[in-house]
Amino acid sequence: FPMYGRYTQELGVYAKEEAARLRESGQRRSVSDRSRTLDLLEYDKGRCAKCRICTVRCQKFLISRVGEDWIFLILLGLLMALVSWVVDFCIAICLQAQKWMYGGLDSNVFLQYLAWVTYPVVLITFSAGFTQILAPQAVGSGIPEMKTILRGVVLKEYLTFKTFVAKVIGLTCALGSGMPLGKEGPFVHIASLCAALLSKFMSLFGGIYENESRNIEMLAAACAVGVGCCFAAPIGGVLFSIEVTSTFFAVRNYWRGFFAATFSAFIFRVLAVWNRDEETITALFKTRFRLDFPFDLQELPAFAVIGIASGFGGALFVYLNRLIVQFIRKQKAINRFLMKKRLLYPALVTLLVSTLTFPPGFGQFMAGKLTQKESLVTLLDNRTWAKQGIAEEFDYIGHSQAWKHPQVNVFVTLVLFIVMKFWMSALATTIPVPCGAFMPVFVIGAAFGRLVGESMAAWFPDGIHTDGTIYPIVPGGYAVVGAAALSGAVTHTVSTAVIVFELTGQISHILPVMIAVILANAVAQSLQPSLYDSIIRIKKLPYLPELGWGHHEKYNIRVEDIMVRDVRYITLNCCYRDLQNVLLTGHLKTLALVESAESMILLGSIERAQLQSLLSQQLGRPKRLEYIRERAVAEKKRLSVMSNPGSDDGSQRVSQEVRFQVRGHCGWREEVCHVYLSSQPPPPPPCSPLCVLQISEWEEMQLDEQVNFNNCKIDPAPFQLVERTSLHKTHTIFSLLGLDHAYVTSIGRLIGVVSLKELRKAIEGSVTVKGVKVRPPLASFRDSGTSSSENEATELHKLWDRHKSMSLPREHTPSESDEKSQ
Amino acid sequence: FPMYGRYTQELGVYAKEEAARLRESGQRRSVSDRSRTLDLLEYDKGRCAKCRICTVRCQKFLISRVGEDWIFLILLGLLMALVSWVVDFCIAICLQAQKWMYGGLDSNVFLQYLAWVTYPVVLITFSAGFTQILAPQAVGSGIPEMKTILRGVVLKEYLTFKTFVAKVIGLTCALGSGMPLGKEGPFVHIASLCAALLSKFMSLFGGIYENESRNIEMLAAACAVGVGCCFAAPIGGVLFSIEVTSTFFAVRNYWRGFFAATFSAFIFRVLAVWNRDEETITALFKTRFRLDFPFDLQELPAFAVIGIASGFGGALFVYLNRLIVQFIRKQKAINRFLMKKRLLYPALVTLLVSTLTFPPGFGQFMAGKLTQKESLVTLLDNRTWAKQGIAEEFDYIGHSQAWKHPQVNVFVTLVLFIVMKFWMSALATTIPVPCGAFMPVFVIGAAFGRLVGESMAAWFPDGIHTDGTIYPIVPGGYAVVGAAALSGAVTHTVSTAVIVFELTGQISHILPVMIAVILANAVAQSLQPSLYDSIIRIKKLPYLPELGWGHHEKYNIRVEDIMVRDVRYITLNCCYRDLQNVLLTGHLKTLALVESAESMILLGSIERAQLQSLLSQQLGRPKRLEYIRERAVAEKKRLSVMSNPGSDDGSQRVSQEVRFQVRGHCGWREEVCHVYLSSQPPPPPPCSPLCVLQISEWEEMQLDEQVNFNNCKIDPAPFQLVERTSLHKTHTIFSLLGLDHAYVTSIGRLIGVVSLKELRKAIEGSVTVKGVKVRPPLASFRDSGTSSSENEATELHKLWDRHKSMSLPREHTPSESDEKSQ
Repeated sequence: FPMYGRYTQELGVYAKEEAARLRESGQRRSVSDRSRTLDLLEYDKGRCAKCRICTVRCQKFLISRVGEDWIFLILLGLLMALVSWVVDFCIAICLQAQKWMYGGLDSNVFLQYLAWVTYPVVLITFSAGFTQILAPQAVGSGIPEMKTILRGVVLKEYLTFKTFVAKVIGLTCALGSGMPLGKEGPFVHIASLCAALLSKFMSLFGGIYENESRNIEMLAAACAVGVGCCFAAPIGGVLFSIEVTSTFFAVRNYWRGFFAATFSAFIFRVLAVWNRDEETITALFKTRFRLDFPFDLQELPAFAVIGIASGFGGALFVYLNRLIVQFIRKQKAINRFLMKKRLLYPALVTLLVSTLTFPPGFGQFMAGKLTQKESLVTLLDNRTWAKQGIAEEFDYIGHSQAWKHPQVNVFVTLVLFIVMKFWMSALATTIPVPCGAFMPVFVIGAAFGRLVGESMAAWFPDGIHTDGTIYPIVPGGYAVVGAAALSGAVTHTVSTAVIVFELTGQISHILPVMIAVILANAVAQSLQPSLYDSIIRIKKLPYLPELGWGHHEKYNIRVEDIMVRDVRYITLNCCYRDLQNVLLTGHLKTLALVESAESMILLGSIERAQLQSLLSQQLGRPKRLEYIRERAVAEKKRLSVMSNPGSDDGSQRVSQEVRFQVRGHCGWREEVCHVYLSSQPPPPPPCSPLCVLQISEWEEMQLDEQVNFNNCKIDPAPFQLVERTSLHKTHTIFSLLGLDHAYVTSIGRLIGVVSLKELRKAIEGSVTVKGVKVRPPLASFRDSGTSSSENEATELHKLWDRHKSMSLPREHTPSESDEKSQ
Repeated sequence: FPMYGRYTQELGVYAKEEAARLRESGQRRSVSDRSRTLDLLEYDKGRCAKCRICTVRCQKFLISRVGEDWIFLILLGLLMALVSWVVDFCIAICLQAQKWMYGGLDSNVFLQYLAWVTYPVVLITFSAGFTQILAPQAVGSGIPEMKTILRGVVLKEYLTFKTFVAKVIGLTCALGSGMPLGKEGPFVHIASLCAALLSKFMSLFGGIYENESRNIEMLAAACAVGVGCCFAAPIGGVLFSIEVTSTFFAVRNYWRGFFAATFSAFIFRVLAVWNRDEETITALFKTRFRLDFPFDLQELPAFAVIGIASGFGGALFVYLNRLIVQFIRKQKAINRFLMKKRLLYPALVTLLVSTLTFPPGFGQFMAGKLTQKESLVTLLDNRTWAKQGIAEEFDYIGHSQAWKHPQVNVFVTLVLFIVMKFWMSALATTIPVPCGAFMPVFVIGAAFGRLVGESMAAWFPDGIHTDGTIYPIVPGGYAVVGAAALSGAVTHTVSTAVIVFELTGQISHILPVMIAVILANAVAQSLQPSLYDSIIRIKKLPYLPELGWGHHEKYNIRVEDIMVRDVRYITLNCCYRDLQNVLLTGHLKTLALVESAESMILLGSIERAQLQSLLSQQLGRPKRLEYIRERAVAEKKRLSVMSNPGSDDGSQRVSQEVRFQVRGHCGWREEVCHVYLSSQPPPPPPCSPLCVLQISEWEEMQLDEQVNFNNCKIDPAPFQLVERTSLHKTHTIFSLLGLDHAYVTSIGRLIGVVSLKELRKAIEGSVTVKGVKVRPPLASFRDSGTSSSENEATELHKLWDRHKSMSLPREHTPSESDEKSQ
């Protein structure tokens, strides 16, 4: 009967007082602890007592400070800036060494070729081997894994110190080889590793670092730092990391990301100034386009063309990358061979790529001698290469000279560069070394943009603008647009636009860049998953696909269409035998606990391991031994009357038999058996057949007992959905809360379960319900709607009837009521 | 007993087939519908049959297309760009008119003053009156309301056409007056209005626009469009709208925002080109700082100072704004007077502000004759005003001349400008017209930055950089930093940095801007809420405060510390009397439904209105009349034997008495009584006292009946928390899912309830538990932890005992079991 509960302010006040009391007592305790320590020290009047007191005080202060987020973020930013700068520095040295070797051997082409090819092959092979041996988890970009980890999945060994070392050294060697590989993806992983390790280190000082949700927040900030310190692009870094790793983003984490990424980018650039590379803090790839008239309105169609073409190009890149991986996997002969000689594949690929880029060879037609950074700098160049067709000779200075071949047109060079680099990058990113694909794609995009820009410049030598001043076309601006569009298409992000502004230090082309990026995304998203999602699928990581843009049918699918109706559950009054059966027949990680099989009221969920330990407690060694001892004592008493054999021996015999018996039961889980069998020190002698029978009888008895859930950890509030929750909302809730499964209930009654698997299937298009009436999904979660009240009412009615029958037992015959309650 | 459910692939297949069947039948139906229409038309061989067929086909095609998101977003972007441009155009005309009047009357200072003052007073008074009459909801910024709406709260009349008209016209007049008011906040509201109206309009074509969660997504995109088309800042617009309106953001909505905002900004700028205001698409407030050496590393401390000072300034602004509102509210005499003459306050404020800015008067010392836009352009100017102290004469051209007073130093002018504008803006934003505070704050920030920059330039006339080239200091860069920092501090956002880059078209100062904005935010956030949160509190809108940054104690408070333990609930087997009591004593919107008072198993929640209708059905007119009719028939029969009075008259007498009787019960809800009393056409004659007694007896009987929940709408899955869920996580879940309240359960048993109110109290610091052991909050939600298993076990034990007692009734005495089940 209702208790007519009053909401009283008093209760709240009481709770507050209680809380205050608890807090005070806690403080008093810690204060007394500290004063005791100090007293002790002062009492100990040694020569360095004062010194010690001071140290203890400093330590206390430090410990109270290291818990603050900003300390952690500053340390993370500083660390990552240093790592990024050191890695860049080492890469530059590696690349310079290659150039120096190549330049020094210019007397003999063959020796030159050998030097040009051997150097990267050795570096890549070392990188692959080193990573393979130390930590195979360090292979690849790391963004797909981070996406999975931020969704709440625990990937083993992904955030260890070993992986950190393997990733940093492997990445440096891989990029030092001059192969078309990127630094961005690995840096996201490295930053996360840094954050995890720093967090572990700082937890030595304070307890706050053991907080799991805080760690997830810090990982999200770390991803931003990774991108930010890689490109010195704090804003773009934050946005890119959000787009690439999150489905839902807490705005309060945004701040952390900005803070850490800005600090990191700042230190990264200050290091460059300190090293006299730069005069002051500027962008990494600074451009100097004119500010007063960056582009004409009539050039916009050309930018749109770049966007659309980049969209197709990006989808093709993702497809090509997946195709190569799948081809190598499927060809069993190749696969078996490569599995044996793991380092052969990287070496072969590197050989192929570096042979083709050999400057005196084919490389001369594709600016092969330029490193990635040099190519990008020249592509973003202010000047026009192909002014007035090929006729006007342009004074190529520095690296730009590489693009100019005496016999071949600039356009041909650019086209060759784009085509060759395209498949080379797609191939190179499949090498098992730490590497990303962002930068190579970025460079290809820039080259494509430059190609369109040069064509436009050749087509309109005096610019398009007609009244008054002549504003010639700036092909560098096209390169910027192309770079943003292609990298945006491959990664399915819009924030590449921001990265491009921060990289070039100019924002004057904002509208063309935004338009191209959006068009590229629209095309690429409708053709292929993003590169990271593609890798997630290839690696078979647990994931939840995104709901497509404008797929209205998603609003029409309901949970009842996709849920598994045949749920495994255990009841509150079940016996151990049922428990055993459930464990023997299924492999689910968690099981639903319901009140009874008739009411099906969901009470909570229990983990499999918990049930296993329950069962092992019931059938386990202590109970068994106890039983045997009891039996032995009884037997002894009985036998002491009759005869007098070795009673201790007998109990041991029984114990051995128990062991045998238990092994028969062990089908459902080896480990548990192991637990209660391994610590059996005395080897027990054999037992009589009678004894075996008795034991099995005892076991049957034990199994028929009702389960005692007293010492069992129960999740008292598993997530519940309703039948009519829409797919759209289910997806939202799953990705918001990082769920693995959710129970479907109807007025407290368990009627189904939905796991990530069903959801994935439904989203990927196997299940689609069209023509069904659209209802607002938010409403369906909170109020059940009138259309379905009948069904619910029936359900409720059942429960109600049952209750009636229980609360008014006199109206029923006793036998009927017994049957029901059983 | 467990059913050992198998997870079968077959079931999934079955579901799929079912779904496919449904879909197909749906399609077939629609196809047949269409073909029937066409058949009908073809059958009707009139002269325009073909024409009609064509129209129908076009219509079908259109309807299938308008459902697509991108059509909606493009329309929204186009509409908002047009609105923004038209509003800007009208404002410019208004301001020009004022200047023209002022300029034309330069013969007489008094006439000049009259013109200068009257014009804005008239405009503001009109704006205030117009808004007041048409739609008072249009007053103010609109961002606080949008934040509340996006949290899921329905605010009445906030998204209607009336509000749209009032907001657009009111805003134009208010800004046309030249008062220090902004356009950004209102534009967020206008864009949302546009989206809501467009959505309503498009729902005429297709059903998808009726989807509630889609509408929320579209509103989020609309907020981005609002900022984007106001400043031609698509990226900054998206980020600013996210920071200002959301707590959690779905990355899939991001795309929509970018798309719409880019399109809108593009059209907005194209309109300017088309109107010959600009030669091509460029930034709104284009700057021309040098690219090669934007600032020296040693200038960074000055930028940091700007950031910290802006933080204090921003907090002061928010405090001042709130103080003014509270002062006017508290002074009852003022308040009563202003309530009577609503238009007096705006007029007085305008009079004061425009008197002080009168150019020949005090205005000459604070560049009073410049409009907001002109001030900003001059403040962001490339050149240095105070080079070499005051000695060197700088050739002030155009508007910059306003800053130069023959007698007074530029520094004095700047300081006066900052101080006067500061309180003027804080005062002006309290006027009840549609207005924002972003732009005034932005200008004040720019002036402050310029002041610091000019001081630096005076201090280091040859720049700070020592080796080689002289790079003089650029005070315009300081102005950019100041503008971003102060507006960031007032709104608690970091994205003002991005807005500033997009507004000026230069990103070269990225690091100083980011550092200043972050420092300003750090200071301001620790002192005051953001301006929008402050307004939310003043307006008493339902809100959930943000968790502070780095407040570790939040991790230690648990739901059990803040929940209300005394929950109102109804049981499944309760009678109508209980229902009545619950409704009479409490005012909660929803009530928990539990299985029984002993088990307390939560089954769902029922809305108050549902219960009221249940009760009114039970005691309502139809039942009453039926009973009376029955009684009357019985009476008649009895009386027909005894005597023969007007039987019809008697029943009517009863009916009147019923009415009286019902009124006595009406305490709990007037409306319900109204419903079943209003439609009582015949005025019934009085009744005998015996009759009244009978009726009340009948009523008591009715109230003692058990409630039949069959026709009642029950929410079968209200959100549940566990006692040990941390405050941090509760906050996350409440803001993620937009909850209003959540039940706290322990293994299915209802033990408490937490509503927004309790949560708000806890966050705002009344409850803090320190010294409590920190446990990972995510873990506490999913697994219950070992530390507390005792408590749970006890709970479970109770339930288990109860079950045992029910399933094995023979072991108990019948009387005991009866007691329990009752």
